[in-house]
Amino acid sequence: MKEIRVAIIGFGTVGQGLGQTMLAQHERLLQRTGISYVLAAVADTSITSLPKGYEHVTFSQDANDIFADPTIDIVVELIGGMEPAKSFLLKAIECGKHVVTANKALLSVHGKEIFTAANKKNVEVGFEASVGGGIPVIKALKEGLVANKINFIKGILNGTANYILSQMTDHGTPFDEVLAEAQALGFAEADPTYDIEGIDTAHKLAILMSIAYGLNVHLDDINVEGISSIKPIDIEFARQFGYRIKLLAISRNHGDHVEARVHPTMVPAEHMLATINGAFNGIQFQGDTVGDVLLYGQGAGMMPTGSAVAADVVDIGRNIVSNAVNRVSPLSYLPENMGTPRITPMSELVCPFYFRITVQDRPGALAQITSIFGTHGISIQSMMQQADEDNDPVYIVFRTHLTTEGGVNKALAEIDALDVCTAPTVKIRLMNAE
Amino acid sequence: MKEIRVAIIGFGTVGQGLGQTMLAQHERLLQRTGISYVLAAVADTSITSLPKGYEHVTFSQDANDIFADPTIDIVVELIGGMEPAKSFLLKAIECGKHVVTANKALLSVHGKEIFTAANKKNVEVGFEASVGGGIPVIKALKEGLVANKINFIKGILNGTANYILSQMTDHGTPFDEVLAEAQALGFAEADPTYDIEGIDTAHKLAILMSIAYGLNVHLDDINVEGISSIKPIDIEFARQFGYRIKLLAISRNHGDHVEARVHPTMVPAEHMLATINGAFNGIQFQGDTVGDVLLYGQGAGMMPTGSAVAADVVDIGRNIVSNAVNRVSPLSYLPENMGTPRITPMSELVCPFYFRITVQDRPGALAQITSIFGTHGISIQSMMQQADEDNDPVYIVFRTHLTTEGGVNKALAEIDALDVCTAPTVKIRLMNAE
Repeated sequence: MKEIRVAIIGFGTVGQGLGQTMLAQHERLLQRTGISYVLAAVADTSITSLPKGYEHVTFSQDANDIFADPTIDIVVELIGGMEPAKSFLLKAIECGKHVVTANKALLSVHGKEIFTAANKKNVEVGFEASVGGGIPVIKALKEGLVANKINFIKGILNGTANYILSQMTDHGTPFDEVLAEAQALGFAEADPTYDIEGIDTAHKLAILMSIAYGLNVHLDDINVEGISSIKPIDIEFARQFGYRIKLLAISRNHGDHVEARVHPTMVPAEHMLATINGAFNGIQFQGDTVGDVLLYGQGAGMMPTGSAVAADVVDIGRNIVSNAVNRVSPLSYLPENMGTPRITPMSELVCPFYFRITVQDRPGALAQITSIFGTHGISIQSMMQQADEDNDPVYIVFRTHLTTEGGVNKALAEIDALDVCTAPTVKIRLMNAE
Repeated sequence: MKEIRVAIIGFGTVGQGLGQTMLAQHERLLQRTGISYVLAAVADTSITSLPKGYEHVTFSQDANDIFADPTIDIVVELIGGMEPAKSFLLKAIECGKHVVTANKALLSVHGKEIFTAANKKNVEVGFEASVGGGIPVIKALKEGLVANKINFIKGILNGTANYILSQMTDHGTPFDEVLAEAQALGFAEADPTYDIEGIDTAHKLAILMSIAYGLNVHLDDINVEGISSIKPIDIEFARQFGYRIKLLAISRNHGDHVEARVHPTMVPAEHMLATINGAFNGIQFQGDTVGDVLLYGQGAGMMPTGSAVAADVVDIGRNIVSNAVNRVSPLSYLPENMGTPRITPMSELVCPFYFRITVQDRPGALAQITSIFGTHGISIQSMMQQADEDNDPVYIVFRTHLTTEGGVNKALAEIDALDVCTAPTVKIRLMNAE
């Protein structure tokens, strides 16, 4: 019987999820693959021993013990963050180990260095769990959709942000209250910055774009706006226009340049992405051959993430056993064919927009505003004025046809400088129909 | 440069879809895999030459020319149906060719024979395109979810049936009219039996179950009911109860037995499967590790199917080049670990039900009916009576709690035998909440 020996560095939630999965699924994996996948070692500095059930597993507080163990085939890094995760991954690679990680932050910043090191040592890098939790999205993109030019990627990639927006939408509760609730319930971290400010989503988009297009996309390439400034009133106006607000990762492939953006987006209520609520994730691809494909599931959590990490372990194990290491390139394109992205500047972005303009209710205000739109060639699709006549200032909201963000920014600067405008205009992008 | 030479038998819609994909994506596949995938030969009895663009491709009306060509690595069967598709596949395997097929009808009936033959000759059988068109569902199940016991499968697997039900739901049009329209528009075949009677869906469910559970599931194992008896009035009552009617493939894994059924099903309106309309497909899996995963996309069509067939070709090509043939077992489990299913008898099925009972509007009718339900231990969740008082007979509709189909059938036999009942009761199963 062939055996693949696996070591985990970092035995937190996901590490334990993988540990439990390897124990629970050992027999099933053996029946499916003919390979005995053995959890051989765990390293973690924050515990002194492993819990019950792991008696056969070597424990150490020092990851170097794992690198030094010549029987270990695959090292799974589940510490997260930059250091020591990066050094550990590079050390494992240097020692000729195959590596698996769920660390999107690391890959979106230092991916090139890690993939280059792995290529040099001819070891594999698995990272299915870095995007979409348990959803097999990386494999779908690298293998299932291999015969496709990817036209666009649209995704709800952060469960915390989606949970908060869903709660705000369903109950009209302000952002701060929902966030506090989510933190109390354990759905949001004590420091929720990465989740709510779109940074975690950007990590994941950088990874998806790299695979989809064969471009080394870096976190810094992604234009990011979070959800902390979204107000219940904008969610309500969105609803009246027939939209829901979601934090979307969006990349459209224009051939010689690619969009790379994460921001609150108004999604048509009947679109499948608008129906993905709570902590779930959904990722839509459009391929030139396949058309639209959407994958949905739990984007985080101990066991879903464990499922994805285990799938990588199994995949690499099969390759080790059949001498087919790097049978599929880690980023789908051969390393020598990876290019450098040219990112569409946000000022050149073309999409429909929503504006909420705060004005004193004076005759002529609307004329002044629409005249500015006209000057900048911004064509209005529909308009609503807040019904409550007692309020002054009032909100006037607009939904535009396709227009260019650069022109929008100029127009809004002029509008916000008007005497009648008493607060900065709120701008939310609509999802392109395609 | 490594080259993989591919031959297509059957150059109809899907065959041409694959041909176009191989031409259009040749350069991309080369950049991704380092392999030149060449369409080398086509055989088709119904044409005399290939269209423009295929000048480099050898054409024959005789598939034997392909089997005899030692340079062909992969034979793609896209004829469909039983014969000669089956003989051709077996012949190709006998000649040591790897094979790819989209032929769900064939696999769900003769799969065991074909997989056994391929195993003996150590060649691969790719069949991604047999279920869910372009959606990479087979790969997701075999590889992405490998570390999961699959608890259930629920799917909309036939675009024609889903299109017809969607049209009936949106416009209240009777089945026959929608079918005639669909045929006129080319969305339904001249003989739509396989699509509307659930047989095509059953083919696909048999394949998914085989992979999910490691059991040789045969078409005959699947309990099948089609949509031709669905009436707009049942769709309307479903709507009032908060459901939509979909033709679902359902299999739940009870460990020592597995459900295997295809029938019109009332799906809660807020469930993602209820939102899948028109010709799209959606497949939900629940794994014990990953939880719920749903995949969505175009379930048929020239290019989506071409995308899936091409993915198989690429996969097998990679294995040929890296000497890793049958790196993944065709049905996920090693051939020697495939078992024989024990199918849950429909009489033992436990789910909630909808009944539409046709009665003369007489005092005591309801009491007689509910008394029969009581005798058989059927607990009613809610009831509606048709509002229109001028009608006689009238409809009384019920939605039950979880109950056993065997008991339901006995109760309905008694109810239909009542003097007040003037037409057979319509019974529609509800989707289990889980």
